[in-house]
Amino acid sequence: MDSLNLTKSISIPSPTKIVLLVIDGLGGLPNPETGKTEMETAKTPNLDKLASRGVCGLIDPVSPGITPGSGAGHLALFGYDPVSFNIGRGVLEAVGVDFDLQPEDVAARGNFCTVDKAGLITDRRAGRVSTKKSTELCQLLDGQVIDRVKVIVRPVREHRFAAIFRGNKLSPEVSDSDPQQTGVAPLAIRALRPEAKRMAGTANQFIARAKTILAKQFPANMILFRGFSRRPHLPAMSEIYKLRPAAIASYPMYRGLARLVGMEVLKTGAKIVDEFKTLTQNYNDYDFFFLHIKAADAAGEDGDFNKKVAVIEEIDSLLPELLGLQPDVIVVTGDHSTPALLKGHSWHPVPVLLYSKWCRADKVKEFSESACLLGGLGRLRATEIMPLAMANALKLIKFGA
Amino acid sequence: MDSLNLTKSISIPSPTKIVLLVIDGLGGLPNPETGKTEMETAKTPNLDKLASRGVCGLIDPVSPGITPGSGAGHLALFGYDPVSFNIGRGVLEAVGVDFDLQPEDVAARGNFCTVDKAGLITDRRAGRVSTKKSTELCQLLDGQVIDRVKVIVRPVREHRFAAIFRGNKLSPEVSDSDPQQTGVAPLAIRALRPEAKRMAGTANQFIARAKTILAKQFPANMILFRGFSRRPHLPAMSEIYKLRPAAIASYPMYRGLARLVGMEVLKTGAKIVDEFKTLTQNYNDYDFFFLHIKAADAAGEDGDFNKKVAVIEEIDSLLPELLGLQPDVIVVTGDHSTPALLKGHSWHPVPVLLYSKWCRADKVKEFSESACLLGGLGRLRATEIMPLAMANALKLIKFGA
Repeated sequence: MDSLNLTKSISIPSPTKIVLLVIDGLGGLPNPETGKTEMETAKTPNLDKLASRGVCGLIDPVSPGITPGSGAGHLALFGYDPVSFNIGRGVLEAVGVDFDLQPEDVAARGNFCTVDKAGLITDRRAGRVSTKKSTELCQLLDGQVIDRVKVIVRPVREHRFAAIFRGNKLSPEVSDSDPQQTGVAPLAIRALRPEAKRMAGTANQFIARAKTILAKQFPANMILFRGFSRRPHLPAMSEIYKLRPAAIASYPMYRGLARLVGMEVLKTGAKIVDEFKTLTQNYNDYDFFFLHIKAADAAGEDGDFNKKVAVIEEIDSLLPELLGLQPDVIVVTGDHSTPALLKGHSWHPVPVLLYSKWCRADKVKEFSESACLLGGLGRLRATEIMPLAMANALKLIKFGA
Repeated sequence: MDSLNLTKSISIPSPTKIVLLVIDGLGGLPNPETGKTEMETAKTPNLDKLASRGVCGLIDPVSPGITPGSGAGHLALFGYDPVSFNIGRGVLEAVGVDFDLQPEDVAARGNFCTVDKAGLITDRRAGRVSTKKSTELCQLLDGQVIDRVKVIVRPVREHRFAAIFRGNKLSPEVSDSDPQQTGVAPLAIRALRPEAKRMAGTANQFIARAKTILAKQFPANMILFRGFSRRPHLPAMSEIYKLRPAAIASYPMYRGLARLVGMEVLKTGAKIVDEFKTLTQNYNDYDFFFLHIKAADAAGEDGDFNKKVAVIEEIDSLLPELLGLQPDVIVVTGDHSTPALLKGHSWHPVPVLLYSKWCRADKVKEFSESACLLGGLGRLRATEIMPLAMANALKLIKFGA
């Protein structure tokens, strides 16, 4: 019996409430000038007070050394082993634009790109064509039917789009056409297993048609595909945890991820303060809230140390609104680290703070990487957070006689 | 290769001796008035001195957030993965009254209950009928033979009894008759797999006979069954560890558990001091001792903080007797936490202390939850304790070339 089924076998519904506050890309690295990380630099009186009353630790999203993508980092926080339940790039793009992906659909991540007269790639991103233009191009490609397979094309941002192949018995086990380099031609898509021949053929035919349709659309005169994938079968959180879960996230990709595990996705505004307001407004109607703040990760990806500090401080200033709701369990953590120094996701373990009446508080008085290292939770896998939150909400009965 | 087989492949017999002292329900939560847990409140000079000389840590009996039953908590301490080797409620009751359960027996936990004229349950515990009366009633039911299956009935305590179904090819995969509520009739037992039809039929016939036999025994005029189970196949500790293991436990359930993993169960008195005496008296004849103290858990379950403190202090005062024997390895821990505040088992990690000449002592000077958090063992799974104890007893050779 795996961990998810173990939890399922002992979870019970109850009126207690859990709030999981995910600060995307929370963990960081010290600024060489000050020796302090983003969290250590930020003034966070409210988070520090909560850390004093709660129990802290560090989590590895996947395992030590592994840098997770956004899908893997979040699935782990929701309790799903991100290695068993791998979400493909195509699926992530599709659910990321609120596309209602069906179980049999095969989704691919698409790029508009530039090819020269010889058909060799000169720019894998077509000069980062504008989202407006890209949206028009997607409309030209959308709705083709090839060999009884309907191809749905949806713009994402700039040169990025999602293609969804809808038909009977399509297998996602095909290779990419994106060679991940310039100066070569796009690759033919190949079936990686015999049952994927139809999918490969359809995709290659679609690419040929797209090339014709886009012939005069320089620099966006060709497309590249990668990450063909099907929606993984994820048991719903309502089944596993007997929860009524709701997601509050202003970025579509996270709404899509939440929907994959059966959360109800709430309407919310784009600002951090809007998300906290949405929590308050809907607090009575659910017993689990996933509250996602994107801005910390975005600042980290931009290498903007001070901006990331400011985002963490803004969240801290809004924390009293959450605390005023008096949830039975509050978890504050990130889906991975995004040190401004690295300008990208990283493998460093992520601080976690858990507060409940029954949490057995430790001596940590500050919410930061170095303080959490000495916390009572020790070093955990991210998948262990949900069982702990459930236990602290008294939503798990005893295991075994 | 799983952990048990890994250990088996490198274990060797040797004259060194290990004592595993299990203080049932050891871990706790802080008293809101003092901010100190039961362990932090108790004056334990001997345990603290041993902690100073040893290495400490915290263990999760199953995994973070999971509250174990007594069977699961103990199996883990003996090195057996409690999720793979799940012990059913019926088996636990049977071994708990020293019944010599055979591998093919199917055991069920029974309750005497009260039904009204319409057959609806009015009391699931028959007014907590006395153990004396219950023993008489069990004799009325004991020894029936149905369809070549012998039904053995043994009293446990008050309304509780164990029923053992002995026959060929019985499957335990049947549902409970206990609906776990009043105002409804007992449920018919159903086969959960085709091969369990005979078991379900036999159990239902037995219940029908019991109803007739008990008709005039109000309030104990009916029975309920749950937790049909067969003894799990647990490889003996002597095979895995090459040990001659002995168990000292005044409560029958723990003697039963010890017997399931092949320990020799020693006769002992009911008091804590008696158990320590039994250890001394038998010290020459075995090289592994499981010494079980129930009273800490009982006090925790009763919500009696001060009683639990007193039990821990009593154990501490008896520790010199154990130390005087100079075992090569001493492990002191619990099978789970039982905070007086929660009046029941909990998921909180349990302090562990390991002493040997080779333990690489840490700086922990006190045996408590908060002190062990900073100990040299870190945070471990309970199943990792036996390999560590074996290593410290120099009973494990090198793994791999």
